Order: sequence, then structure tokens, then C-alpha cells
Amino acid sequence: MSELYGYAGKILYVDLSKQKFMEEKLQTDVARKYIGGSGLAAYIIATKANLDAEPFSEDNLLVFASGPVTLPYIPTSSRLSIASRSPSTRAWGEARVGTAFPHDLKKTGYDAIVVHGRSEEPVWIYIEEDHVEIRDASKMWGKNTGEVFDLIRSSTGKKEVSALAIGIAGENLVKYAAIVSNEGGVAGRTGLGAVMGYKKLKAIAVAGGKRSVPVANEEKLKEYAKQLTLKMYNSPGGKRLRDYGTAGAVDRYYQLGNIPIKNFSKGLWSDESVKKISGQYLREKFFERHSPCFNCPIMCKRLSRIRVNSKELVVRTPDYETVCMLGSNLLIDDTTMVIYANHLCNEYGLDTISLGGVLGFAFEAYEKGLITKEDTGGLELRFGDAKILPELIEKISKREGKLWYILGEGVKFASEFIGRGSYKFAVHVKGLEAPAHDGRAFFVQGLSYATINRGACHLAWPHRVAQGSTYPEIGIREPIDRFQVDGSWFVVKQMQDFMEIFDSLIICKYAISAGLGPKEVVDLLQLTTGWDVNIAEVMKIGERTFNLKRLLNIKWGITSKDDKLPPRMMEPLPEGGAAGKVPDLDRMLREYYKVRGWSETGVPTMDKLKELELNIPGLTVS
Amino acid sequence: MSELYGYAGKILYVDLSKQKFMEEKLQTDVARKYIGGSGLAAYIIATKANLDAEPFSEDNLLVFASGPVTLPYIPTSSRLSIASRSPSTRAWGEARVGTAFPHDLKKTGYDAIVVHGRSEEPVWIYIEEDHVEIRDASKMWGKNTGEVFDLIRSSTGKKEVSALAIGIAGENLVKYAAIVSNEGGVAGRTGLGAVMGYKKLKAIAVAGGKRSVPVANEEKLKEYAKQLTLKMYNSPGGKRLRDYGTAGAVDRYYQLGNIPIKNFSKGLWSDESVKKISGQYLREKFFERHSPCFNCPIMCKRLSRIRVNSKELVVRTPDYETVCMLGSNLLIDDTTMVIYANHLCNEYGLDTISLGGVLGFAFEAYEKGLITKEDTGGLELRFGDAKILPELIEKISKREGKLWYILGEGVKFASEFIGRGSYKFAVHVKGLEAPAHDGRAFFVQGLSYATINRGACHLAWPHRVAQGSTYPEIGIREPIDRFQVDGSWFVVKQMQDFMEIFDSLIICKYAISAGLGPKEVVDLLQLTTGWDVNIAEVMKIGERTFNLKRLLNIKWGITSKDDKLPPRMMEPLPEGGAAGKVPDLDRMLREYYKVRGWSETGVPTMDKLKELELNIPGLTVS
Repeated sequence: MSELYGYAGKILYVDLSKQKFMEEKLQTDVARKYIGGSGLAAYIIATKANLDAEPFSEDNLLVFASGPVTLPYIPTSSRLSIASRSPSTRAWGEARVGTAFPHDLKKTGYDAIVVHGRSEEPVWIYIEEDHVEIRDASKMWGKNTGEVFDLIRSSTGKKEVSALAIGIAGENLVKYAAIVSNEGGVAGRTGLGAVMGYKKLKAIAVAGGKRSVPVANEEKLKEYAKQLTLKMYNSPGGKRLRDYGTAGAVDRYYQLGNIPIKNFSKGLWSDESVKKISGQYLREKFFERHSPCFNCPIMCKRLSRIRVNSKELVVRTPDYETVCMLGSNLLIDDTTMVIYANHLCNEYGLDTISLGGVLGFAFEAYEKGLITKEDTGGLELRFGDAKILPELIEKISKREGKLWYILGEGVKFASEFIGRGSYKFAVHVKGLEAPAHDGRAFFVQGLSYATINRGACHLAWPHRVAQGSTYPEIGIREPIDRFQVDGSWFVVKQMQDFMEIFDSLIICKYAISAGLGPKEVVDLLQLTTGWDVNIAEVMKIGERTFNLKRLLNIKWGITSKDDKLPPRMMEPLPEGGAAGKVPDLDRMLREYYKVRGWSETGVPTMDKLKELELNIPGLTVS
Repeated sequence: MSELYGYAGKILYVDLSKQKFMEEKLQTDVARKYIGGSGLAAYIIATKANLDAEPFSEDNLLVFASGPVTLPYIPTSSRLSIASRSPSTRAWGEARVGTAFPHDLKKTGYDAIVVHGRSEEPVWIYIEEDHVEIRDASKMWGKNTGEVFDLIRSSTGKKEVSALAIGIAGENLVKYAAIVSNEGGVAGRTGLGAVMGYKKLKAIAVAGGKRSVPVANEEKLKEYAKQLTLKMYNSPGGKRLRDYGTAGAVDRYYQLGNIPIKNFSKGLWSDESVKKISGQYLREKFFERHSPCFNCPIMCKRLSRIRVNSKELVVRTPDYETVCMLGSNLLIDDTTMVIYANHLCNEYGLDTISLGGVLGFAFEAYEKGLITKEDTGGLELRFGDAKILPELIEKISKREGKLWYILGEGVKFASEFIGRGSYKFAVHVKGLEAPAHDGRAFFVQGLSYATINRGACHLAWPHRVAQGSTYPEIGIREPIDRFQVDGSWFVVKQMQDFMEIFDSLIICKYAISAGLGPKEVVDLLQLTTGWDVNIAEVMKIGERTFNLKRLLNIKWGITSKDDKLPPRMMEPLPEGGAAGKVPDLDRMLREYYKVRGWSETGVPTMDKLKELELNIPGLTVS
């Protein structure tokens, strides 16, 4: 049993090359300094990985990590952090997924799994209490995720098994291949599915653990969790998400010029079209039932019923990012096809955000004559053509033919390959395709895109502050105007550091919409771990992990030169809610580096690292 | 005019991103410490490049360099060194090509061209005296090299233009794309054609320069060169190469078990088949005429007349490496098709060595059922099937379809993608496919493969010493047995360092077969530059550049872990001239590191770097 409250106490290392396992005790000081989840994964990679290793190499590590508050009764804690050096950006890569997997993992005695090496034959990892197996996955190879989960269930003979798998996109090393959970959640970003594919690791499953995780103050914690669950359930934000899912925000964000339209080139679309990708419309026309993450009071996830090719299907409802990236971004308002495309992405294991970015890029390149019918094998790539989505998803996942192979590398590579000015509409940061928020609609979002470690990532959510939220406990005492430059750096830094904590605890980001703020974070951490923490220490931990990931990026050659927005996002939109606005990124970056305590070239100073007690051999600055 | 004898005196920097040029004076101390060619290129990359830059990035530099003895009247000096960080190995990349290009370049006032940045549109660079242009290459894009050279000639209106170009393999970023010269020579290894492709640089041409290069002692040098030319012309080695080309060695090397047969798995082939890829047979049946590099007395290069699809063609005759890699390695003895495949490789711009390695790997994977007809689109990949070569060359160059894309990444990636034990027959070192010499037939060659900076490269030629050659001036006073382990490290180190000088002067490696040894190297260098050099200083320079490249590799993550031989080359051959023999690589490496003055982990020590006066900021060791 762990000496640490809130933790299972051990980390499992699986070496696929040598087909061996090893356990290590989770050190108390490591837990205190990095908490868990994303922070712990960063620490493990920084200290255990060969940092010279390529993303596609035996030595790259793939970490699956839970956190101390990953406990079945804590709301929005059914969440797993996955991290690795990203094959897409070659930088820090991470993604989270809503699943009971981490609960089940902790019951087997492990807080985290670290996979290294690679197998020659397809394998999957099966973990029970006191028992780890590397199993043959040759029958799973080439299969979609749904089938893989069926095979896992039947081969284990267990109903209650938590599993993660890749589809054929991951097998084929598509740079935005996702890792999919058997409950339907997806760890989409930064191509971690391709890391699994490279390692020939088709799936990982856990079942049957019976260990309990001790917490510092169980009675109080359970009561607190119960009250918090009720509070979140009854919060206006929680209710809105429950009613309409995250796509409920489509119309509001459309008004603000925040949703991507035609590869981020336009600010207006027809009201009817906007309506047809909205959560309200999805609810009205397609809603089948809720399908929440385990024990989540928000319940944003849901299923839809659709009819495709005269077949009825009940599939996961796409979220906000997906309806925008595969909808408005492609001028597609065929709701059924957007839902179906989302389903196919889950089956083939593709990140819908990056796919939407890649297709937006490809459609624009086709429109401009930079991709021709000769390249596509006769297909027309046209904005607004929903019918073509299934074929494109399959072609990219299977990498059939040169163009599809190239598009499977992401927009950065594709634009470099195609050349001829196409970089101007390749919408990515550090190689990661931008999601469905616009740095021109929320300048804080623009700055955050440019600086967050994994590339264009919206999940530091500074734009909440530009929509009225304040977090006085972390110094954000008043909202910021969405076009405000002054002070944007402070908001961005604080939200980035704060959201690091969410990813380390690990708690869903939507919890913040349902009222889980800095106070609750501290309360949960105290009651679970027994640590005498306060918000200042928590924020310091968040800042530490953010800086650690920055150091890793610098080690990997990703530096201030890469802190930028795509050219498309530096041109003003011609119309709509953000018309004519472009952030003054140069100034924002200068001030951001200062408020971060970094040098003018974006490198953490020695003083800052000392302050953060961040001293990892091989990751120093000069 | 240069203050340096033997040099034009300036380096031309071309920035394709900014479409700008810049000149820099060649510094006297740099010339003295690194000479030119490969050594100068290593110095330029080490000091001017952003060493964090990816092979495919704006910041990667591509250097074209001549040397001080690159003078039309010096025999075997019509040779250009090209270097970059390799996209194939991610390590030090270099290749040389026989061409009058460097003579013409020096006449325009430049010793070297350094290309950085990348263009959005296809371009080519045209250099005349006092005039540099970046020209539109959109009409050349998609064209084979022969057509490109025609377009260059017609667009410049000059008959006498020296040009280098890539074919479609380079455009498509095939990792073993070559750079081809209009005289027919090929800089094949380490994928430098893909670096040009990434930069959208289709070709580079030079013409019309009238500057003369001053030398220290022109009269004496010219007389010396004349005598040397006669000596080389009349040498037995020179004569043999002139009579039969480099492929004249096929039979001799077959007897020794040195030629690759069936992807390096066999030691015997039929005598008739061996004969049909030999230089003697090529001479007897296909010889059209000699086609030597400018002013070369050896004249190993020649043209062949073949009839393919009822068309007569006069094309370049394949060299030793090519007849083996596309012949015996694939069990192909159809001489016409080997000659034709070589021609197609020159047109599409593919390295024949790596292509032969890739096809050997693919054929074996097909034989073992790891590649199926489903993957090939119905094609059968069978050893011995010559008819399929043209189609495979086209498919790989065009990257049509997933399998062909993957094979275009080289055997390392392909074996990782395919998995299932295929690494066991992926014959490469550091990602570079092995050429047509076997480390089991010459243990010194095995050690050199494992340690030379660009990966499996035969061009340090230590196996000359295992065939009776001695070089007392550099301490090699007696031959070594080809299966001898003791002392192999010294021979390998000395030959590697000595051959660095050949690549820096720059002089063809075959000159050594025609009697150009350490003494002649010193004589030529003295008479050209006026430096008071001796063989000790020359060898120190060679050791310096070798160590500099090693430091670059270490910076790029390529370390002692990569100093190894492919598994296939560590299994004994079942029969033939090297049956049952495998080098004791571990011991050889240990002693090699010692004799190099490196640490046990293969890192140059501070003492060694001091001794070599090798002190480049950012390239230190700890």
C-alpha cells in the first residue's frame, strides 16, 4: 500500500522490446512537486527518457497517468493523461481522455504506466491486479477500434474492462492518430496514437483490480465530493453542458467570430448552417441518450441516432471542436454527415481537430489549384461537400496513395511539400493544427496558442476570462476585454499554470464551467493527500510543470522562434464578430516572456528555475 | 582575388527563403584547418547552421564545396563534395560526385555554395561570374534529370554549363534521392536530393566564369600534375579501372565473399550470373565508349549501348556498387536490365545503393509473407525478376501508394513499419543502407561501417589494406589479414582519417588505386597552397574533420549506441569466400574508441579535442 494518500503508490514500466515489466515506487517528493497526470508524465519523461530519442524510436516513452484525485467518487475525475514526445510536433505531446481507465488502473496498484521499447509483432497490454501480460494482437491489427474492444472483452471474458486502442490511422503512423477509449472518449491531440502504432501497441486494457486507495480524510472528502457533485450538477454552466453538450456554444462563439469558417478565412456563414451544427439542433434532432464519463455530474457526452446509407446507427455525438472543425471549417452543414464522420474518426482513430484542419487546408489548396484531380485520383475536394468525408477519412487513415500519405503528415508537412505559398493557409502552431477557437476573436487565446507547449491548444482557456470569468485566488480579479492587449500576458500565464493543475490532478477542464475553481482544487488536494497546500503552492506546481515542458521543448529544438501564430490568424477577418482584429503578438510575447521570468529569447532564467525548484540533470539552461 | 593559393577565396550563401545572396571571404585559418570539400562543409555546418534544425527545415544547410586542388589540370580533381544534415539518417550527410562543376564554380570566384532557407515555388540557381540568380523552375518540376539539363542548356543559351539537378524522387522527398550531374555523375548517398527537394531547389548551374585561381607554384604544380597523370594512367590499377570500370572487381570480390547476394544472405551465386554483372562482360557486350570525369587519366566511367523495348539507348554504365546492389543482391543477372535500371535511377534521381538495399529488403519481406500482394497492388516482388525493376523504380520515385511511400523512407523505417522480425534483414547502419561490401569478408570494413559518420559507407576503404596495400607514411606498414581482429582499429582509424583528406582536397577515391598515396597528397597540397605541410599535419586535419562530424552526430543524438552492424551482417554466411566468419565487433569497437582517443562511450575526450585544436562553440563534450 502507498505511503502517499490519494495514490496507488507504484508506477508500472513496460518494455515492449524486451517484453519485460518493472515496478517503481512513486516517490513522495515527486508526487508533491508534480502531483500526477500530465505533471508526473513530464517528470518521468524528463528524468527517464533518452531525450535525444526520436518520437518514432524505441527510446521514446509513452506515459499513461492518473492523479491523486482520480477517485470514482470525485466528480469529473474519470480522466487519464497521456504524454510522449509528439511525432506530429516533435515537441511535448499530451492529450487527455475521459474514461474510467485510471480508476481501474489505480485499483490494480498503479498510478501510471510507462511504455518504452517497441514490439516487432502487434501486441496489447493487459493489466490485472498483480499481473501484467503482453499479448499477441495480430488478430486486432488492421481493425477499427470498436472491433478491438469487442476482441478485448471476449478474450478477457470480463464485462468490466477499461481499454484504450488505436485504429488503423495509428497503425499507419498518421501524425494525428488518436487513442480511443472503449467508453468512447478520445485522446486526440499530438498524434499519440501514432506513437502506439510505432510501438506496435494496438491496445492497453485493465480490469479486476480490488485495491483501495487510501485518502487522508475519507469521510470529509466523500462528503465534500458529494456536495461538489451537487453544486456542479446544479450550476448554470453544468446544466447548459448537460442540455446541449459542448456544441451548445456554437452560436455564441459564432457571434463572436470565434468559430473557424472555411479554413479560418471567413467571419460569416449562414444562420441556418450555424444552427445545423449547434448543440441545440443536435439535441432536438439526433439526441439518443446521455453517455457521460463515469460519475460525471455535467454529462456533456451523449449519443446520437443517425441514418446513413439506410442504416440506423447510434453513435457518439460530436463535441464543439468537431462540429466546427468538420462542419463550419469545411462549410459543411450536413449534420448527419458530421456526426457520422466523427464516428468514423473514432473507429479509424483520428483526431477530429487536426483532420478538420488538414481537410480545410486541402480544400483550399484544391480551390487554388495547388492540389489537382491528378493528385486526388479524380476526386474533387470542395468546401461544403459532406458526402466525400467518409472516403477522405478512410483514404487518410489507410494512407492510400501519395496525396493521402502527405495529408496524413499534417498541414505543416503538407504545406511544405506543396509549397507555392500554401503556408499562408496552413493553420497550425508548432505543427499542431489549430482547434475551433480564433486568436483574432480572443487575443488571450492567440497568445496562448503561440506559447502553450503542445502547439495550438485551446485548453488553457484564457478566453473564459475574456467572457466574464474571474479567479481572484490566482490574481485574476477582473475580466479582460477580448481584444485587449494590455495585461493579456498575465491572464494567459495564470490560466496556463492553473490548467496544468487540472491536467495533473487530473480533472476535466469542463469542471471549471460548472464551478470548480481554485478553491475547490486546493480543497480536493488537501482532503485527498493530506498535504498542507494553499493556492500559491498549487500555482507554483502548475508553473513548474509548464516550465518543465518548456525546457523539454527547448531541448528538442522548439524555441521562441516557434512561438507564433499561423499567417492566416495574423490576417484580419473580413467580416463577423472579430472583423478587422489582429492581436499585437510581438508585444504580447515580449511581455509574456517577462511575466514568465524568461529571457528575451523565451528561455526560463536560472533564477526562475531556482524559484520553481526545477533542477533536472540534462535540462539546464545557459 | 584570394590571398589563399589554390582557392577562389569566397563562399557564396544563397538564402532561398529571402531570395538573397551573400558572399563571405574564406578565412585563411579555416582553409588551413579544414582544407576544403567535405572538411570545409563540416566546418560551415558546425558554425553557421542552427544545429537544432531538422533535416527538412529552412535552417538546414546544404553545402556544395570544392577544394584547393580542384584545378582542371590536377588528375581526378573534377569532384564536388556535397553535405547537409541527412534526412535519411538524421546524422552527418555527405556525398561526392565526379563533375567539372567545381572547376567552373571556382572560375566564378567561389569555392563553395551554401544554400539555406527554402523556396515556396520550385527554383533553380544560376551562377555566372559576378552574377547569381534564383530562377523559376516550375517548368522543370516533375521532370527527369535529362530533361532538366536540356532546359538549363536552352535557357542559358550556353553549351558549357555545369549543372546538378534532382529528379522526381528528390521532389517527393524519397530518403535516398540523389543529386545528379549533367555529366552523368551522381551524389547518391544520404538523401541529399531530398534536401534539395524540400528546399524546392530543382537544380543549380554554373557557367562562364573566367577567373583564374592562383597557386603557390604553378609551374612546378603543372609539371607535377602532368607526371602524376602519366603515372596514374600507366598504373596497373588505373589500367584495370580503365579497361573494365569499377565493376571489373566483381569476380574477385565474389571469390572473397564480399559481394551482396540475396540481400546479404548468401555467399554463392552461379558463376554464369556473376560473370554477367562483371565489368569484363559489360566491356565485351555493351561498351560504347569511355565517358570520363574531366581530365581523368583513370577513365573508369563509360557508356553502354543497350536495347530496351526495341529501342536502342546509349546510357551510363553502372559501377561496381550498382551491378551488385541491383544485380547480385537481387539475384538479377539480366545485364541489360541492370544497365537500364541504373539509367532510370539517374533520371529519377535515386541512389542505386540504397535502392538495391531497399529492394533486397522488400523482396525478402515478400518471400517471408511480411509484404503481400494486397500491399503491392498485385505485383509479385521476387528475387531474380529483372522485368519488374523499371516499374519499382518509378513507383518508389513517385511514391504511388502506401507501400511505395514507405519503401521510399529506406529500410530502417520500412522495417520498423512492417515489424514482425524484419529488422533482422534490414541491412543498414545508422539508417543508411549498406553498399556492396561485406563486413564479414573484410573485418576492417565491418568496423568502418559501424563507425563512419554517415552510416554504412565503404569509402574509407580499409579493405585495401586487407588486400595487400600498405601506407607506411601513415603508419600502415604491413597488410592486415581480412579476418584479423587485432590491429583492425588502427587500420580503420588511419584510413578513415586519410580518406577525409581525399574528400577535402577533393580527389577521387579511385586515385588511390592508381597510385596516389600519402606522399602525393602532401606534394599536391604543398605545391597548390604553398603551405609547409607534412603528412602528420595532413592526418591531423583528417582526424579533425572526422571528429568534427562525430561531434555533430552526437549533437544530433547519434552516438555509440548507433555504432553497430546490421543483424544480418552479424550472422555468418553459410558458404562462399567469407563462410562462417563474423567480426568480433564489440572488441573492435572498444579498441577503436581507445585508438581514437574517445571515451568508452565513444565520445571524443577533451584532451583529444585540444590536441586537434577542435573548439567550436556549442559543440563541446562533457
